[in-house]
Amino acid sequence: MRQRNLSMVMRAIADHGPLSRARIAEHVGLTRAAVSTLVGELAGAELLVELGRDRPGTVGRPGSALALSDRGPAGLGAEIGVDHLAVCAVDLRGEVRVKAEESAPNRDSSPSLVLGRLAGLVRRVADEAGAGGLRPAGLCVAVPGPVERGSTRVVRTPNLGWPPVDLGDALSGTLPEPVPMTVANEANLGALAELWIGGHGPGLTDFVHVSAEIGIGAAVVVDGELLRGAHGFAGELGHVPVRPEGLPCRCGGRGCLEQYAGEAAVLHAAGVVAPAGAGVELLRRSASDGDRAVLEALCGAGSALGIALTATVQLLDPQAVVLGGALAELATWLAPAAEEELRRRLQLPRSRLVVSRLGRSGPLLGAAHSVVRAVLDDPLASGAPAG
Amino acid sequence: MRQRNLSMVMRAIADHGPLSRARIAEHVGLTRAAVSTLVGELAGAELLVELGRDRPGTVGRPGSALALSDRGPAGLGAEIGVDHLAVCAVDLRGEVRVKAEESAPNRDSSPSLVLGRLAGLVRRVADEAGAGGLRPAGLCVAVPGPVERGSTRVVRTPNLGWPPVDLGDALSGTLPEPVPMTVANEANLGALAELWIGGHGPGLTDFVHVSAEIGIGAAVVVDGELLRGAHGFAGELGHVPVRPEGLPCRCGGRGCLEQYAGEAAVLHAAGVVAPAGAGVELLRRSASDGDRAVLEALCGAGSALGIALTATVQLLDPQAVVLGGALAELATWLAPAAEEELRRRLQLPRSRLVVSRLGRSGPLLGAAHSVVRAVLDDPLASGAPAG
Repeated sequence: MRQRNLSMVMRAIADHGPLSRARIAEHVGLTRAAVSTLVGELAGAELLVELGRDRPGTVGRPGSALALSDRGPAGLGAEIGVDHLAVCAVDLRGEVRVKAEESAPNRDSSPSLVLGRLAGLVRRVADEAGAGGLRPAGLCVAVPGPVERGSTRVVRTPNLGWPPVDLGDALSGTLPEPVPMTVANEANLGALAELWIGGHGPGLTDFVHVSAEIGIGAAVVVDGELLRGAHGFAGELGHVPVRPEGLPCRCGGRGCLEQYAGEAAVLHAAGVVAPAGAGVELLRRSASDGDRAVLEALCGAGSALGIALTATVQLLDPQAVVLGGALAELATWLAPAAEEELRRRLQLPRSRLVVSRLGRSGPLLGAAHSVVRAVLDDPLASGAPAG
Repeated sequence: MRQRNLSMVMRAIADHGPLSRARIAEHVGLTRAAVSTLVGELAGAELLVELGRDRPGTVGRPGSALALSDRGPAGLGAEIGVDHLAVCAVDLRGEVRVKAEESAPNRDSSPSLVLGRLAGLVRRVADEAGAGGLRPAGLCVAVPGPVERGSTRVVRTPNLGWPPVDLGDALSGTLPEPVPMTVANEANLGALAELWIGGHGPGLTDFVHVSAEIGIGAAVVVDGELLRGAHGFAGELGHVPVRPEGLPCRCGGRGCLEQYAGEAAVLHAAGVVAPAGAGVELLRRSASDGDRAVLEALCGAGSALGIALTATVQLLDPQAVVLGGALAELATWLAPAAEEELRRRLQLPRSRLVVSRLGRSGPLLGAAHSVVRAVLDDPLASGAPAG
């Protein structure tokens, strides 16, 4: 009960911005006295700060407003991409306070090597965050593949080619003080970031988030919850057949979307060779410059995407399809062809096609925010302040 | 609270069979005295009956066992098919007590004509049920098309060709005493019947139920709940593209599954002409007799189904795909080709392919059971006994 009340106070401020004790009491339906006690505890744990009585822009005597702290618990998000590593620290207000990134040929490296580098990056970000008065409340790692439900074990990483690996084991001991660690599929975290901070407003609760980094993945959000699938494999949009008797796919299937709209397929169709990790940027630049072969390749990819999205819309009937990740950067050229295909195949254009504003930052931000949201859910679980 | 307790008592008996007051008390976590009061109320409303102290097969003194009543509230289910009408009454024990069916060329009739005939059938079944001591607690109508959420309005009936029609208006006044009425998509009711009485056990909570009556529809069940879609149109498996540049479909799309595995398509591929309403039975008989053209047509339909199911499994990752409705009757010939296609396209055969035991009765049974379940949820809402 106390945990729930503490969480309600934190959420009220997270949703509405700084509030006086009286306004918090209204929002959460508790007495002012009860709220004062809760606020005292939260402030003591560096979760809330008093903004002072004379906030500019307010009239009358609003009472001292309370805001989420810019010190205290922070969410650490990490991302293992096919050709990069990234880590960030997000404070309770949702602000990215530290970010570090490095390009890394993860596809050709052993898991232990990559995870060693990642651990170094996590330590660097945690140190810098600590210098800013933040302490990690948890670490969430985004990976390009499905994760065993309720564990830190990555089952498959088709684009990394790793054997199954338990990141919990490999990354334990990374920080001087152990923190709770979770591992999640990057496609799912990108979708959650879209839900939480995508800027679509609270009305968008049923959507499919399509993202790409070499492979094409999707995450399905229903009623504001991720649809994970019975075995954790839902959302494999990249392996929906779009030319059923077409090209063989490395998944063992045939004519999968990835063979027509994946990065390698588009580069190949455009007759372009790009160094690892530079493909999307090269396509974006060439398309901007009006390169005809690239424009045609992106148009073809958009059509193939439109066929797979037709299947998706017929089966799931979402409010919207959000193009995220690297697709967001190419949306100018992909989306028109995809939309034309959807219009051609669906009587009514039921589901909107929307371009993500988070783009490739989605999974990393989703990872860090998942930790911040866990703190809001159980504010005092993240331990007493270090000092 | 009282409603919840009454419901818990009913559900305990529905789930476990006849129970003594003491065993009910254990199951629901209330005192024996409280249970006795609740049981008294439920027996007074003809919802429970006392089986007597000497049940055969029990040892010791089990106390008088209570069972769900075979009198009192009953669920009326009705079905508007493309070429038939059906109505049934199911008692609280889940037993079908009355059933009436007639073939009816609904596709070529006006809604008012069809609904007039249906009302007559509902009255007949309600009368017969009344003679057996049952009184309708509600009516649920299964229709071949999507229904506006929370209403009795049928939005589209592609295979009936009706304009949008409100069944609540049209069927009000059917029974001498008005009862709550709901209208639902037959595909959804078929899936719910599978969930409730399909005999798969409580472990099957995530599945896709595919059914066919001329068109091909599906319903998606996630965590034991129907996935309805943002606009109520989820599950349109029949319009997933399986030959993207193939035959035009009456939906406006191209290469939809229905053009390759719908009843008309299979009849056409087999070079068979069947009178309306007799297509599936004709195919079944010819296939049983080893008619080569029919066998080949069903094999082709199964392959097309396998492609659409590949998309479904990739996106949703269900525990199982259940072939229901008319498909269940043709499953012997459809399923092997569909399974081969799934095996060819999916690395791991993640989702089982299962044939429904309910077959074409699913939607009608689902309709009647949805009323029975509403009675179990709120046992005394169905009014006092008539006598």
